[in-house]
Amino acid sequence: MKFKAVKIDVNSGDNFILLNYSDAKKLDVQIGERIQVIIKGKKAVGIIRITTQMVKEGYIGINSRLLNELGVDFENDITVEAKKIEINSSFDYIRKKFKGFDLNENEILQIIRDISEGKTSDLETLMFIFSSYYNGLNLEETINVSKAMAETGNKINITGKVVDKHSIGGVPGNKVSLLIVPIIANSELYIPKTSSKAITSPSGTADTMSVIANVELEPSELISIVNKTHGCIAWTGKLGISPADDKIIQLERPLRIDPEGLMIASVLSKKIAMGIKYMVLDIPYGKGTKVEDYNYGIQLAQKFKDVGDALNIRITSAITYGSQPVGHTVGPALEAKEALEGLMNPSKAANSLLNKSASIAGLLFENTGLVEKGLGYDSAITLIFSGKAYRKFKEIIEAQGGNPNVKPEDLPIGQYTYDVLADKEGYVTFLDNSIINYIARMLGAPYDKGAGIYLFKKENYKVAKDEPIMRLYSNSESKIDATLKYISYNKPYMISGMLLESYP
Amino acid sequence: MKFKAVKIDVNSGDNFILLNYSDAKKLDVQIGERIQVIIKGKKAVGIIRITTQMVKEGYIGINSRLLNELGVDFENDITVEAKKIEINSSFDYIRKKFKGFDLNENEILQIIRDISEGKTSDLETLMFIFSSYYNGLNLEETINVSKAMAETGNKINITGKVVDKHSIGGVPGNKVSLLIVPIIANSELYIPKTSSKAITSPSGTADTMSVIANVELEPSELISIVNKTHGCIAWTGKLGISPADDKIIQLERPLRIDPEGLMIASVLSKKIAMGIKYMVLDIPYGKGTKVEDYNYGIQLAQKFKDVGDALNIRITSAITYGSQPVGHTVGPALEAKEALEGLMNPSKAANSLLNKSASIAGLLFENTGLVEKGLGYDSAITLIFSGKAYRKFKEIIEAQGGNPNVKPEDLPIGQYTYDVLADKEGYVTFLDNSIINYIARMLGAPYDKGAGIYLFKKENYKVAKDEPIMRLYSNSESKIDATLKYISYNKPYMISGMLLESYP
Repeated sequence: MKFKAVKIDVNSGDNFILLNYSDAKKLDVQIGERIQVIIKGKKAVGIIRITTQMVKEGYIGINSRLLNELGVDFENDITVEAKKIEINSSFDYIRKKFKGFDLNENEILQIIRDISEGKTSDLETLMFIFSSYYNGLNLEETINVSKAMAETGNKINITGKVVDKHSIGGVPGNKVSLLIVPIIANSELYIPKTSSKAITSPSGTADTMSVIANVELEPSELISIVNKTHGCIAWTGKLGISPADDKIIQLERPLRIDPEGLMIASVLSKKIAMGIKYMVLDIPYGKGTKVEDYNYGIQLAQKFKDVGDALNIRITSAITYGSQPVGHTVGPALEAKEALEGLMNPSKAANSLLNKSASIAGLLFENTGLVEKGLGYDSAITLIFSGKAYRKFKEIIEAQGGNPNVKPEDLPIGQYTYDVLADKEGYVTFLDNSIINYIARMLGAPYDKGAGIYLFKKENYKVAKDEPIMRLYSNSESKIDATLKYISYNKPYMISGMLLESYP
Repeated sequence: MKFKAVKIDVNSGDNFILLNYSDAKKLDVQIGERIQVIIKGKKAVGIIRITTQMVKEGYIGINSRLLNELGVDFENDITVEAKKIEINSSFDYIRKKFKGFDLNENEILQIIRDISEGKTSDLETLMFIFSSYYNGLNLEETINVSKAMAETGNKINITGKVVDKHSIGGVPGNKVSLLIVPIIANSELYIPKTSSKAITSPSGTADTMSVIANVELEPSELISIVNKTHGCIAWTGKLGISPADDKIIQLERPLRIDPEGLMIASVLSKKIAMGIKYMVLDIPYGKGTKVEDYNYGIQLAQKFKDVGDALNIRITSAITYGSQPVGHTVGPALEAKEALEGLMNPSKAANSLLNKSASIAGLLFENTGLVEKGLGYDSAITLIFSGKAYRKFKEIIEAQGGNPNVKPEDLPIGQYTYDVLADKEGYVTFLDNSIINYIARMLGAPYDKGAGIYLFKKENYKVAKDEPIMRLYSNSESKIDATLKYISYNKPYMISGMLLESYP
């Protein structure tokens, strides 16, 4: 059916289409169903809403997100062809997985393609996510999802030895990429570090870097930056790599879920698309992380290796200490500040931050054959203390449109603060990662860049009664209030003497 | 924050709120988040979309669905108070179930209340559905979900012995309620039969009845009809009973899923709300139904009995033959036609239809003590053949605003038809319920009331080559085409000689 277009200024988070009631009847479509629209030969899919007055018969309302996807300029009364999308076979495959059957390569490709093209509804995509969570994806399926996600998106071509590091997440304050990237970029290696925005954590690497530089890079910008500086820290969102994964993450994020098979495919599809050949995977291990059982950590490392081998990516896993936050800060601006200070003045930096960054960078040096086994850590730490990593970081900041001379104190941390005081004297015997992550999000992170937590006291620190343990930051006073209410029932720390309990 | 209201004529399937970009920032809300709006003391929750032009700063756009829920008349510039909804604890409980833990009564009440009040997002509600599917709901949880669903909605009070029948579905063409209700309503029993619209089938009882009479009854209308005629067949949608279940069904329907625990709670919450004291549960058993394993049927019957006992509803299950459709028709108008013909002229009706209807009605007569054990079927079948059931049905049709003298040939069946011919000579040895359900939906049922299937040949019928096996009906030619394409790969019937295979 043909329509004349009307632009509708509604941002609904999806491709919004508004049809007159009678036209919807003629097209035989319901609210929430999808139709394909074609303008000047360009096609996109939109989700239907219905009106009786706002759009007249013969007209079709479309929002700017849909226009952007079509890539055509809007003109009044431009002709739009609209077609109902018939039942898609990928839904049958999703149901197959839902019922517990394995999917073959073609079935997976069809599902992933339809997700990437917006032809599956959010509910159907979520059904695929939950089915993958509860029934699992086997090795073959994980490889096929990774390949399908990469195939249905852009590829970034960088000539040279391209490497990356990636953390599966779970430990708060893990700002190590801001140190690792400039260390590696000092060598002949290329490290186009990409990161999605935070899924379950209060700050992803891209959220943290965004405080200092522009992370929303187009493919051509990223390539020219990396060719020049050997490194970058970019958000995946504008690169068009693995678009199906972006859609999946968008649904997982508000629910704070992250099924293993899809998590592996999410990581590796993006590495395929970025042309990564060597990778170190950071698996934080310890209470309150995603990996509380050491054997599970080893299993996960093996799975990544197996999938990586099939995809020609050499993956080494680093199982790292993750029982408490890395460094002292949690939240985008606070973490960016700590990373910057660490590069500028490493002698004052938290040991956990320097040690972890240099360990992972060292593994990359060793695995690519650049540095002899056993010498990677030293090479990396030397690059930090010599100031070379900081100079490289400034180059990268500048290449990404930031101010290379930015000072830590310039970074916009939250205007409202509250100090949480120790309720007794003793030693901090426990910091609860899950609660720390959760309250950092309650405070507004990662959307509120200034929100987060500064930890004065970490595990094994001695603390006096009423001494501040941590400072909360937010740009919303009501969020601080809500967080205080929450932590009055869910304490993020534990203080004990050396005697934990006497019995009987 | 206070706003002036603007009515926005958009039907998005939910409570639609449109805010200016700057107001959304001030309220600190994102697209897809929920806010509570208060007009003249009435409260409701809406889902946010954002605009830069369509609604000015200081104004809030709301659609008529939201206004209806508030129950206030719209006036221009009426004052609206809007509040951000803080993190709700029910999401923590949903996550608890997601991880496989059992929920207690209060946790379940909180989840169900939030679903009923629109305070959980569709994605969160779907997470509860999938978690209940994969982790199951135990007896205690099922009882608590049933009670919570009933408590958070309207209650219908009818004085007298109130009974009902219910089918778990799965067998196509199950129009027996249109015969059972007038049989029962001939006695001193009251049968306020309510039905949701079809979930996974091409026609629910309410869809079928809607072809003949008004099924969208308000509580007071239903009560007065049932007081007068002792029976009705109504859609649950306008009764306001078990609103959380309506929301859950709305999400399950497009995904064609129906987790057992929620299914039991869905049925029984509505029976609690309707004040039902005796119920016969129809469990169709056989290949292609929901119950393909006899023992599972017995188990399910026991679960219903256990939950019913805790809720003071005496439930008897009828495990019925379900390997092929009941009667000859599938689809709303076709089924209404067959039921009406059956009551008007039972000697020509399909045996499966009469037998099943009288069996279930008979069980109700016996269980309530109205008729001696063993005599229920005879009493019921007599009421059909004497014409009393038909006269009662006319009373009910009239009470529900339909034409009591409606003729079967008046019913609006699909304008396009296609006869599927036998591909060889032999006996029909198999009719595939799943495929028949699926193609009836492909043809447009239940939304297209005229869409469906007439089966000329059922199992064990002899058929000649090129003789019509079934006739497809639809009001959309393209749906007939799509269906034909589908059945060329997925045959809904099997024809064999008596010799099924020779070996070797």
